Amino acid sequence: MSLLVVGSIALDTIETPTGKVENALGGSSTYISIASSYFQDEVHLIGVVGEDFPQEHINLLKNHNIDISGLEIVKGGKTFRWGGKYHTDMNQRDTLFTELGVFERFDPKIPEKERKDEFVVLGNIHPALQNHVLSQLDSPELIVCDTMNLWIETAYDELLEVIKKVDVLIINDSEARLITKENNLIKSAKMIMEMGPKHLIIKKGEHGALLFGEDKIFAAAAYPLESISDPTGAGDTFAGGFTGYLSRSGDLSFDNMKRAVVYGSAVASFCVQEYSTKKIENLTKDEIQKRFKEFHEITRFDDAGF
Amino acid sequence: MSLLVVGSIALDTIETPTGKVENALGGSSTYISIASSYFQDEVHLIGVVGEDFPQEHINLLKNHNIDISGLEIVKGGKTFRWGGKYHTDMNQRDTLFTELGVFERFDPKIPEKERKDEFVVLGNIHPALQNHVLSQLDSPELIVCDTMNLWIETAYDELLEVIKKVDVLIINDSEARLITKENNLIKSAKMIMEMGPKHLIIKKGEHGALLFGEDKIFAAAAYPLESISDPTGAGDTFAGGFTGYLSRSGDLSFDNMKRAVVYGSAVASFCVQEYSTKKIENLTKDEIQKRFKEFHEITRFDDAGF
Repeated sequence: MSLLVVGSIALDTIETPTGKVENALGGSSTYISIASSYFQDEVHLIGVVGEDFPQEHINLLKNHNIDISGLEIVKGGKTFRWGGKYHTDMNQRDTLFTELGVFERFDPKIPEKERKDEFVVLGNIHPALQNHVLSQLDSPELIVCDTMNLWIETAYDELLEVIKKVDVLIINDSEARLITKENNLIKSAKMIMEMGPKHLIIKKGEHGALLFGEDKIFAAAAYPLESISDPTGAGDTFAGGFTGYLSRSGDLSFDNMKRAVVYGSAVASFCVQEYSTKKIENLTKDEIQKRFKEFHEITRFDDAGF
Repeated sequence: MSLLVVGSIALDTIETPTGKVENALGGSSTYISIASSYFQDEVHLIGVVGEDFPQEHINLLKNHNIDISGLEIVKGGKTFRWGGKYHTDMNQRDTLFTELGVFERFDPKIPEKERKDEFVVLGNIHPALQNHVLSQLDSPELIVCDTMNLWIETAYDELLEVIKKVDVLIINDSEARLITKENNLIKSAKMIMEMGPKHLIIKKGEHGALLFGEDKIFAAAAYPLESISDPTGAGDTFAGGFTGYLSRSGDLSFDNMKRAVVYGSAVASFCVQEYSTKKIENLTKDEIQKRFKEFHEITRFDDAGF
């Protein structure tokens, strides 16, 4: 099974309470494709960068066996740049600047070959672009979609169009509440499920994630980390690990989705341990599998009756 | 194994976004002893009420086989009354009034028989009183202690004295952060463990609970509820179910503590479904066991490798 990833590619300047990096590799499709590459040999990346995009980043993607033939490099153009500063409570951040550059005119064209990809991740880009991508595809087996508060607030109707068509919607808890104006997360999830997606994943940061589908719920824990260097890209990394694992086997049962949520959580837990993509650039399958087992260990209990 | 419960007994007036009750049965030791009574036949309650305490409440405790020979009824005295109003986000509440009544001079004296109880729950009362209780006991096997933000802010040193001596400290996430001034919950937990308790449970409301001990962590999910009628007493109910289950078998292994956390969560999930103690007054063991199994179902996943 092959995996198509469409999203942003950026150069990030990130400040956290413990440090700062400038022009580091970022963007939703970057994190998604690197994370999925640990599970899936055929990852096809669609995106756009400027001529200023460093060759080392290109090499990094290639080294992860990611097919970047769909990566457009605009001559004389500037790569999307984003700057953000995290608060002491790293669930909070301020955007310091956004320089869209060539991303402003991003018009994702899916090459003939990639239109047949069985698995698709729509990274966090404008819902109109996500819709445009979907209209070009040749009935994929699974469409996974991420979004953000900005689109909920500014492109709600277009987002609803996307949500209707996707198999798995991935959002965080505050986004779920924003979409539905409902404070209770379980009720909010049911309301979103009625909007059309077959499955819904609500990410809750340090509290783990919830998977909804087939009238079932799975509650995944978060990996207990004593410190976090940089939360940027954790959600994208989760989506990449989740879909990468699913696409590997093609098994779309709820039980396998549960495992995929844990693999997504495992790779995302590595992501936040260093700045930018640093930590997820050099993982081994053993490391990922070891962390998966740790997730199992911290949540496992047996029934001895009473 | 017998179980000693010391804490407050109150008449609560509670407003939530969905309704209001007046002079309903409340207080930490009430919830703790009712919850533990489903697991443990020998629950000994120590507390104080006024002459105005309704006979029906006395009957309720007796019907749960709770030994109330240690319940002091002060002639001409008034029972502790508390009034609170919950916000739309039910994690937030305002105290509307506190009339201490006979609770103001509560001086828990543990009768000879109860001093030998193997399991003890110190409900949420002033740490000086909790210390006073501990000084009367005959080396119990397990001491479980609850507290609240008020004592962290006004009686920190006395609270530290208690924490040093207890086997299991139960607090919520905001209290953990308040005690340690540390935002990261895992780091905060490690700091609290260094203060002396053998185990620590951090309750996270809709996000479940974390158990720390023996250099291990267990992450328990919350039961997915679409609506909550009244969160009052949920923490006490958790502590009662947790200790009740542990005291039943006397097995203090980490694996059994994990099960106890889930049983505590199970009973607490019933508690919030109705006002006051209404829902936990008439549970059956089958209902509790069924909910335990549901907790298992929503968190279980297996390792298929990759």
